[in-house]
Amino acid sequence: MSHQLFERHRKTLQGAVSAIQDRTYWSAYPEVPSGKIYGETAKADGWAAFQARLNKPFELDQPGTVGTVGTEASPYGMALGITYPKADLDGLMAAAQAGLPGWRKASIEERVGVCLEILHRLNQRSFEIANAVMHTTGQGFMMAFQAGGPHAQDRALEAIAYAWQEMTRCPSHVTWKKHVSKTDVVALEKRYRIVPRGVAVVVGCSTFPTWNGYPGLFASLVTGNAVVVKPHPGAILPLAITVEIARAVLKEQGFDANLVTLAADSRDDPITKPLVTRPEVRIVDYTGSSAFGDWIEANARQAVVFTEKAGVNSIIIDSADDLKAMTGNIAFTLSLYSGQMCTTSQNIFIPKTGVDVGGKSLSFDEVAQAIVGAVDWLLGDPKRGAEILGAIQNEQTLRRIDQAKADGGEVLRESGSVANEAFPEARVRSPLILKVDASQANLYMREMFGPIVYIIATEGTGQSIELAAKAARELGAITCAVYSTDSEVLQQAEDATAEAGVALSCNLTGQIWVNQSSAFSDFHVSGANPSGNATFCDAAFVANRFRVVQSRIPVPQPAAVEA
Amino acid sequence: MSHQLFERHRKTLQGAVSAIQDRTYWSAYPEVPSGKIYGETAKADGWAAFQARLNKPFELDQPGTVGTVGTEASPYGMALGITYPKADLDGLMAAAQAGLPGWRKASIEERVGVCLEILHRLNQRSFEIANAVMHTTGQGFMMAFQAGGPHAQDRALEAIAYAWQEMTRCPSHVTWKKHVSKTDVVALEKRYRIVPRGVAVVVGCSTFPTWNGYPGLFASLVTGNAVVVKPHPGAILPLAITVEIARAVLKEQGFDANLVTLAADSRDDPITKPLVTRPEVRIVDYTGSSAFGDWIEANARQAVVFTEKAGVNSIIIDSADDLKAMTGNIAFTLSLYSGQMCTTSQNIFIPKTGVDVGGKSLSFDEVAQAIVGAVDWLLGDPKRGAEILGAIQNEQTLRRIDQAKADGGEVLRESGSVANEAFPEARVRSPLILKVDASQANLYMREMFGPIVYIIATEGTGQSIELAAKAARELGAITCAVYSTDSEVLQQAEDATAEAGVALSCNLTGQIWVNQSSAFSDFHVSGANPSGNATFCDAAFVANRFRVVQSRIPVPQPAAVEA
Repeated sequence: MSHQLFERHRKTLQGAVSAIQDRTYWSAYPEVPSGKIYGETAKADGWAAFQARLNKPFELDQPGTVGTVGTEASPYGMALGITYPKADLDGLMAAAQAGLPGWRKASIEERVGVCLEILHRLNQRSFEIANAVMHTTGQGFMMAFQAGGPHAQDRALEAIAYAWQEMTRCPSHVTWKKHVSKTDVVALEKRYRIVPRGVAVVVGCSTFPTWNGYPGLFASLVTGNAVVVKPHPGAILPLAITVEIARAVLKEQGFDANLVTLAADSRDDPITKPLVTRPEVRIVDYTGSSAFGDWIEANARQAVVFTEKAGVNSIIIDSADDLKAMTGNIAFTLSLYSGQMCTTSQNIFIPKTGVDVGGKSLSFDEVAQAIVGAVDWLLGDPKRGAEILGAIQNEQTLRRIDQAKADGGEVLRESGSVANEAFPEARVRSPLILKVDASQANLYMREMFGPIVYIIATEGTGQSIELAAKAARELGAITCAVYSTDSEVLQQAEDATAEAGVALSCNLTGQIWVNQSSAFSDFHVSGANPSGNATFCDAAFVANRFRVVQSRIPVPQPAAVEA
Repeated sequence: MSHQLFERHRKTLQGAVSAIQDRTYWSAYPEVPSGKIYGETAKADGWAAFQARLNKPFELDQPGTVGTVGTEASPYGMALGITYPKADLDGLMAAAQAGLPGWRKASIEERVGVCLEILHRLNQRSFEIANAVMHTTGQGFMMAFQAGGPHAQDRALEAIAYAWQEMTRCPSHVTWKKHVSKTDVVALEKRYRIVPRGVAVVVGCSTFPTWNGYPGLFASLVTGNAVVVKPHPGAILPLAITVEIARAVLKEQGFDANLVTLAADSRDDPITKPLVTRPEVRIVDYTGSSAFGDWIEANARQAVVFTEKAGVNSIIIDSADDLKAMTGNIAFTLSLYSGQMCTTSQNIFIPKTGVDVGGKSLSFDEVAQAIVGAVDWLLGDPKRGAEILGAIQNEQTLRRIDQAKADGGEVLRESGSVANEAFPEARVRSPLILKVDASQANLYMREMFGPIVYIIATEGTGQSIELAAKAARELGAITCAVYSTDSEVLQQAEDATAEAGVALSCNLTGQIWVNQSSAFSDFHVSGANPSGNATFCDAAFVANRFRVVQSRIPVPQPAAVEA
């Protein structure tokens, strides 16, 4: 059965394998939410499917269920009213383990085929999942569709492709022959078996539940592990739909559906700490706050732990050709999803002596005001502004905006509410932009997640680079941008950010933004600074989710013929 | 310069890359200590070079030296009288870090070339190193030559080949192009840089300082890290010679010699704990006892830690064709290097109802006595016995033999001293063989390192397999052997040992032994049970010693031509 799935999706796999080697642009799942691609009724069907989920229990026939949980509320205003099975961890672990022997025995091709079929079905459900992502994370619809759907599916496929490569690097068997004397040959038949680690847990985040959750989920599943998905209590639905689809495919193919289970919890009764420290759990993938990620790294010692945490991302402005092109690009980055991306820039370093732009010297304040103006212009059109900003995922972020303002710095731009026509109750805030001096490290040398931006006056670009690298080294950073017309400055920035383990984007204008990363080409998180210990995606992300265990047995050799 | 080294050794690298994919027999460094291969005077020269090391300071021009350490004594009787630089950790760390920028900037080919040249020179010095290994570990000369020289060099080459593959999987740069509309193309020039983690520490063991130390040393060095080599206080010399050679090659090629340094210490003033927990240390490779390995895993949290620890290895006897062939093979395994290999079998499980051998039913005692008889015969020739047994590395192992006898079990064979003609003062002990019942788990379900063997009477082969797997799962195990003429039993054993993460050898007779593993083909330690978290060698062993950090910059595209 599942070999058919492998054949059906073989081209997709091959495309991904080529892409991760070439690292050119490639995508398996179309990012355009078009009826021509997804079917003329796909958008309406997706909305209807989402609506049909609301205000009722989400049924999952998984064992170890003791009651229900679920209090998700859309950042756009309405409560979702969905309840999920509440998992009893003993029961859940027993169920996950029970599925392992059959899954372990499946061939590599069977497991890959099943995972690619799950991805295919997730892709077909992209509109439904987009609505689920939008109304849990607060992303605008377009972003929820792309990042929550096809881009997340591409990242999953990328992880599967890496895992496929790793699992097939070593042959399944070989005849090993050694001449032990002039006439004697010893031969051994050796067999190499992929042995998964056991039960894996994926801890989802509230802002990108699928994009950040899928790589670990699929990397663990395809390498033979059972996966328990523990969503953030605020963003359960997208992962619950994912689990439902995965279980259906597994069951159809004759495997135990409990190889993928949901472990939903609530803010009042969180289960992540007891879950990730269970002795049965041998792999943990985590995306979320640095503090909790550090806790998991320190305490889930029985498991291999992969973390994507937070950090302080910087923009270094040295010089530019075109002020509008630069500030327009920056304004979009700062505004997109209200700065609730782990890749959004927080700190913008500008020399207090000003910068050269297109041969003209502009003061610090002129550049800072140009950034403010660009944000104002971008969000000035209410419909565009609402779509770009989306909504604020949770109340803590709102409080953080107030806190940032109270803590200090000169307010260059107030964080305002922006009306959302379609969802008047939406929790919308535009970026707060503060001006501070490089000496005020207490303000900007800390992560202030959300629409909070510091424009920092430095002694010069040398100090700007130094501070951006220091933030990356000490607090973690996932992205850094630099604007300069001087190739030496670009080289300095590249050297400093490489050493600090942060990806650098140079002179971005137009339709590429520092906070976006492209599957099969960009490594998301380097694993080389405190923002995480792993990347999407490389061999290190997959190779340790299974081990190779071998056996060997002598093979009789024909008597040697005397020469 | 170093590109020349890469070209010079390219064929060696290519051979290794092919071998780790095919996993057939292959070796780069001849294991036969023959004058025809290594030069007619190589043996005498090696002995002379070793003699010239004795009773004087070992000079290494590395900074951060505060006095000397060194109290090595040969298990064959004489004190070595060598002192080594005693390292001040602050000075050593500063020196190691100072070398990093130049090494990080070197091309992948330059680093690989340097490492392969170091290996080439180590190979040329195999006789000197063999004597150094023999007179620190207690191995017999032939084993010291093979395991300490060419086999260790092969394992190093294997790690380099894996690292080469990982470092070159991603191109160094690519032009990424995406159609963002019907007419518009966005293009980015992306660069991918290998960024090493920083300072690596290799903690050597007393029994196989080079074989177990080289994979980590070369995997870290070739991926751009600086390596501090911390030998066991009882086996410094082989690694000191290695460090000396590595430093010479680095210096010749214009790199900082302090990229490889020695951190020798003494039993009275050990430095491993403060060393491996230094904030500068980002990678630790450890081989040694489980207790200390567990401590490092729990405490060196700032580093990526690779461990090869200990375990309890089993032989399961179900049935056999030929008693002599089986017991002869087992006797050699039990006797080789007095059982001081992490791969030596400790527990032999035999059904108390006896076993079928060549169609004849033999009682438990008959089989047990045949094993004892085979050991007696093997060691009966004093010269052969002395060469196979070697000498006991340290006094603790002697005490453990007495302890094992005192703890209980029926003594089937006493551990005796065996005269060594060449070295009358050698500390030689033959295997102690004890008979116990499966119920006496307190005796055999623990690691008793050294020439201590339990023959355990079980209810049947089912229980034998169960107990062998249980020991592997709970205490760790690196090897397991099974003897059976029943293919179903072999399959059961293979399934159980694979799940327990231990390599299985079936029906070994003749010149292949369960305690030997072959570079490029056999994975040493699975990483899937408590005997270690890593293997020699796979992608997981190398891929996380560096990270890839990228940069991207727009490339202007020609205006689109309207179709």
